[in-house]
Amino acid sequence: MENERLILVTNDDGYASKGFAAAIDVARTFGRVVAVAPETPQSGMSQAITMYNPLYLRRISQEPGVEIYSFSGTPVDCVKMAFDYLLRDARIDLVISGINHGSNSAVNVLYSGTMGAAIEGSFYGCPAVGLSLDDHGADADFEAAMIYGRQIIGEVLSRPVELPLCLNVNVPVGRPDELHGIRLCRQNRGFWREEFYRHEDPRGREYFWLTGDFVNGEPDAEDTDEWALHNGYVSVVPVHTDLTDYRQLERLRRFFPTACDGAPESRK
Amino acid sequence: MENERLILVTNDDGYASKGFAAAIDVARTFGRVVAVAPETPQSGMSQAITMYNPLYLRRISQEPGVEIYSFSGTPVDCVKMAFDYLLRDARIDLVISGINHGSNSAVNVLYSGTMGAAIEGSFYGCPAVGLSLDDHGADADFEAAMIYGRQIIGEVLSRPVELPLCLNVNVPVGRPDELHGIRLCRQNRGFWREEFYRHEDPRGREYFWLTGDFVNGEPDAEDTDEWALHNGYVSVVPVHTDLTDYRQLERLRRFFPTACDGAPESRK
Repeated sequence: MENERLILVTNDDGYASKGFAAAIDVARTFGRVVAVAPETPQSGMSQAITMYNPLYLRRISQEPGVEIYSFSGTPVDCVKMAFDYLLRDARIDLVISGINHGSNSAVNVLYSGTMGAAIEGSFYGCPAVGLSLDDHGADADFEAAMIYGRQIIGEVLSRPVELPLCLNVNVPVGRPDELHGIRLCRQNRGFWREEFYRHEDPRGREYFWLTGDFVNGEPDAEDTDEWALHNGYVSVVPVHTDLTDYRQLERLRRFFPTACDGAPESRK
Repeated sequence: MENERLILVTNDDGYASKGFAAAIDVARTFGRVVAVAPETPQSGMSQAITMYNPLYLRRISQEPGVEIYSFSGTPVDCVKMAFDYLLRDARIDLVISGINHGSNSAVNVLYSGTMGAAIEGSFYGCPAVGLSLDDHGADADFEAAMIYGRQIIGEVLSRPVELPLCLNVNVPVGRPDELHGIRLCRQNRGFWREEFYRHEDPRGREYFWLTGDFVNGEPDAEDTDEWALHNGYVSVVPVHTDLTDYRQLERLRRFFPTACDGAPESRK
């Protein structure tokens, strides 16, 4: 009864991107597909939502088993549109976000529109998988990402997973037979050091354009996604959204001694 | 030597918001202030960065001890502009993001531009504090938020804190003497159920506008930020950015038995 599954596909590069088509192709293996992607590229949009603008929905195509829409908002807006409007009365079995043109390992999970959408999908009570390929090119070769994506999604759909489940999957560049397999990883520590490219626009106004380099804070740690990706492995990092820093919570008790968190001194 | 500290202030409601002025006022207590806020309101922008557009910087005002700029990007862009360009050669002692018009408790930490900027600030090796008031009004009364903000920031600056440190501080509505004090909390579990407001624009095209309600997944849990906020306490949640779900990482080993993460089977 595999074909009765309903898979939502979204991405952050826009409905016309090659990676979106690749993700739809992966999704079709597993069931009926509804795909909603941003009207325009939305890389770096993180988990942003559109609060100040009306949004427009457009059906791009409809064929048996695959409906494709564009939506004029962010990747997270697309997920909300699918769950809360388009497919409101349906049961969605899985969300696939991607396949992103560019990796989303390490701290990039926080800036990534692909992962913002995957995380949002996981809030709705189904597994969510973000797929990214370490190649920004519009014509990137998605074959290996599709093969590994199918394998990982197949496992997720056939196993008794515990929810919420959100996976950040990154695939290195290479032919399928050049990759070394899948590695379960933790998120690498690192940060971006930016350079603002500075120039004058045609009206003589100075502008800035963000550019920068990722600094790997632990290049030798073999259990991280960065290491896996740079050593020919497909990295799989399960992602959660409780941002509470429990270690700091303990430390901070020393600084705020009257700020109990279990039995306030003067509960009314 | 308190006046020699350098405090970066940013926000997501824009440089003209009342909350930004309130945050600058708080920051002045502790040192010299450079403030960089978005040109336009950027609520819900999460940790988004601007990749596809040039950005413009504008000095709004300069007086002894306080320089204010607007930047045409996201809240995170503002933080990057300050650290990587404007104050590149300076040592920033603290980042304050806010004071937000509206609370950022629970899962809202993920959508929040205020907290996106605070998290970004914490990546640069100084403590960062996001301050939010549970009142969306443009004319909200920030007095209590300023008093508590000063108290919390005073502790952070005078104590030997461990970095990275990023605090998500939310202040309930009320006069200062009506609030019950500070509570250290964890992030409440919950989610948004959205309704898309649907209407026709003046050209007859159907549009959607995001609206919704927050569903508190654990309304009785007294150690959460939502509980604190709704019971008259100022909530303080330390926030971290390792999104690795370590529990799922353990579980997933069963599904991907060949995917080791310490000793790959075929390391080259």
